[in-house]
Amino acid sequence: MNALPAYDPEQFSACAAAIADAAREFAAMGWTPATSSNFSMRMDDGDYVAITVSGRDKGRLGSDDIMVVDLHDHPVATERRPSAETALHTQIYRRFPDTRAVLHTHSRTQSVASRLFGREGRVRLQGWELQKAISGHTTHESTLDIPVFPNTQHMPELTARIDAWLDTGRPLHAYLIDGHGLYTWGRSMDEARRHLEALEFLLGCELDLRRLSS
Amino acid sequence: MNALPAYDPEQFSACAAAIADAAREFAAMGWTPATSSNFSMRMDDGDYVAITVSGRDKGRLGSDDIMVVDLHDHPVATERRPSAETALHTQIYRRFPDTRAVLHTHSRTQSVASRLFGREGRVRLQGWELQKAISGHTTHESTLDIPVFPNTQHMPELTARIDAWLDTGRPLHAYLIDGHGLYTWGRSMDEARRHLEALEFLLGCELDLRRLSS
Amino acid sequence: MNALPAYDPEQFSACAAAIADAAREFAAMGWTPATSSNFSMRMDDGDYVAITVSGRDKGRLGSDDIMVVDLHDHPVATERRPSAETALHTQIYRRFPDTRAVLHTHSRTQSVASRLFGREGRVRLQGWELQKAISGHTTHESTLDIPVFPNTQHMPELTARIDAWLDTGRPLHAYLIDGHGLYTWGRSMDEARRHLEALEFLLGCELDLRRLSS
Amino acid sequence: MNALPAYDPEQFSACAAAIADAAREFAAMGWTPATSSNFSMRMDDGDYVAITVSGRDKGRLGSDDIMVVDLHDHPVATERRPSAETALHTQIYRRFPDTRAVLHTHSRTQSVASRLFGREGRVRLQGWELQKAISGHTTHESTLDIPVFPNTQHMPELTARIDAWLDTGRPLHAYLIDGHGLYTWGRSMDEARRHLEALEFLLGCELDLRRLSS
Repeated sequence: MNALPAYDPEQFSACAAAIADAAREFAAMGWTPATSSNFSMRMDDGDYVAITVSGRDKGRLGSDDIMVVDLHDHPVATERRPSAETALHTQIYRRFPDTRAVLHTHSRTQSVASRLFGREGRVRLQGWELQKAISGHTTHESTLDIPVFPNTQHMPELTARIDAWLDTGRPLHAYLIDGHGLYTWGRSMDEARRHLEALEFLLGCELDLRRLSS
Repeated sequence: MNALPAYDPEQFSACAAAIADAAREFAAMGWTPATSSNFSMRMDDGDYVAITVSGRDKGRLGSDDIMVVDLHDHPVATERRPSAETALHTQIYRRFPDTRAVLHTHSRTQSVASRLFGREGRVRLQGWELQKAISGHTTHESTLDIPVFPNTQHMPELTARIDAWLDTGRPLHAYLIDGHGLYTWGRSMDEARRHLEALEFLLGCELDLRRLSS
Repeated sequence: MNALPAYDPEQFSACAAAIADAAREFAAMGWTPATSSNFSMRMDDGDYVAITVSGRDKGRLGSDDIMVVDLHDHPVATERRPSAETALHTQIYRRFPDTRAVLHTHSRTQSVASRLFGREGRVRLQGWELQKAISGHTTHESTLDIPVFPNTQHMPELTARIDAWLDTGRPLHAYLIDGHGLYTWGRSMDEARRHLEALEFLLGCELDLRRLSS
Repeated sequence: MNALPAYDPEQFSACAAAIADAAREFAAMGWTPATSSNFSMRMDDGDYVAITVSGRDKGRLGSDDIMVVDLHDHPVATERRPSAETALHTQIYRRFPDTRAVLHTHSRTQSVASRLFGREGRVRLQGWELQKAISGHTTHESTLDIPVFPNTQHMPELTARIDAWLDTGRPLHAYLIDGHGLYTWGRSMDEARRHLEALEFLLGCELDLRRLSS
């Protein structure tokens, strides 16, 4: 199976470097505790995705910690098996052709918010200027709903729920999984990172406000 | 329109460097999430202001991320359009001739405090020694009021409210915008930074005390 | 007593370096305030343990700050007396032959959680994806109990309580001591660190959730 | 008045370096916001104290930011006037001959705790293992009282209150000033720093526990 890679190695290197840089900064923020979290980028030529191998320290990723899969989760030019969560990344790439980067983090704020709002099935964000950091939102007066899906170790169940939400036509730039963490994405690594930073901030503000208003 | 700049390029470089240094430190504190926030300095020779171009990562500003406007928000020697928030900076420079630096940040503490105290229209600070870090305050026994203005995407509405507050003759070194963040300023970058650090600290103390006293 | 060391000095150096690296990172997180906390590793050849000398700044450990004891707390090839807490480390090495690293930290989250849950005698963790970072846990649906033992300055009393818990056959990867801190361990330094990071995270989530749910 | 200094310049340099190192680390923790806080060390030869000049950024102290006073607050070999808070430092050096370092910080935790416990006049710490980091405390079962004195801009009033407390013979390693911050000290810079770290930690734990127990 050691055939020549079907992807451009320079492109892989560029994606791997961008993923490692982002991961190192997220790790420094404490958003990837205990080897959790997964990051990916769609590569330019064809339907391939560079994605982190699970279980690695996200503060110290090398290109060895990143592998390539196709849009149906099959490993490309490697013997490694991708992690179960890969299916959540490729689902987004399949449904949103212009998505180039998917980020899954696991901060304390995200985990706590997912538990607190899990029963309601969504976090509703309103009145925050920083909602404008989410593409398509041009005013703090709009409503930004982040769905919270129940956690499960059975990926097909989770992807089915996400598909069902998307099939209703509601906009989606991010979702939470209950007790677990956040998925967000963008048309570039920069946009995905801006979404992640903004959502981490907004969820933290919501939790603070709730603590203070009770 | 590529005429010679009407300002001294060395002065611009000095202001741009001071802004980039300050911005990098604020970014490291988490006060400029998701490319938010704007910083400016009045230049020595005439009525020009060096100000950050909006939408840039505040942790990595280069001189390319800073432009020049006059006191009426017109870009100087550049094709770039200034951000809408520029009007809030120039308003302060027009009204306070000795102001040299205006800082607009977006910390979680500032955002949450602005929502919590938005209904009352101001945060009242009393009994904190650090109030003395705000110029003109020489004792913790004085009262320091920070007004909170309603947020709007329509700048003239916001500047009119700020003008109305200033016209009452009440002192002003800083204000909050509801759900948005803080504006503060000083007669030098150092003084503006001292005001920002002190207000971030004092707002955080007020939130903590409220959490503990309820 | 200056006989030749009964252990391989290279092995000692490797353990000391791994301990110092880990300790420096924990110190930077604020988990080892005021020279508290102790870290150890079992050495390869025989029943020896490299352990931190108490009272040192954990952010700046040198090999001079680490000594060797046997599994019954006797110092090996040194005049130094080990700290009282050494007994808690060797107890784990005696009972779990495959344990290679024991970490005792003292974070604010751990200390507060130990006080809050001390009366119930345990912290019960349920529904968090990150429980899977604890070896042997493969789903967020399992229950992870961390016992909280009463604090005492009398070590035999504490080790007896821990032995009694272990004798019941309940699984144990970590415990808290009331008002004091956390002990956790693993079959390698990496596993022990993953356990520590995960438990610090999970205890923080539990405290946050409790603050928000009251 | 440019007479030769009455103190050993090498000693001054050593003290100034130790103060600058400590201050830089405290600043990085956020314990010295907006140029607040003051640090001092008693010099070896005679009754002189090296102390920070007020109003400087504590993250970037040079030897120029540190001056010398005698035990009655008179500046030595300098035209500079010491800050009003110098009197609180020299009071401790006069009353405790073996004290070598006094640290005054201004963290959010210290400020909030001082307000919350100001009415009771003291913070009572009990049941925390880290109380043992305060010299003279050998068990978590002892009680550690930190007095909180009312804030005033009139130093003689404050020193009189502190003298009155000390005259009752109660032990004292630290005190808070309401709305202001913490003073603590030690027989060496290391001991003073250990006290500061421990007290910052313990006050934070107390606040957390109160938030969670209400």
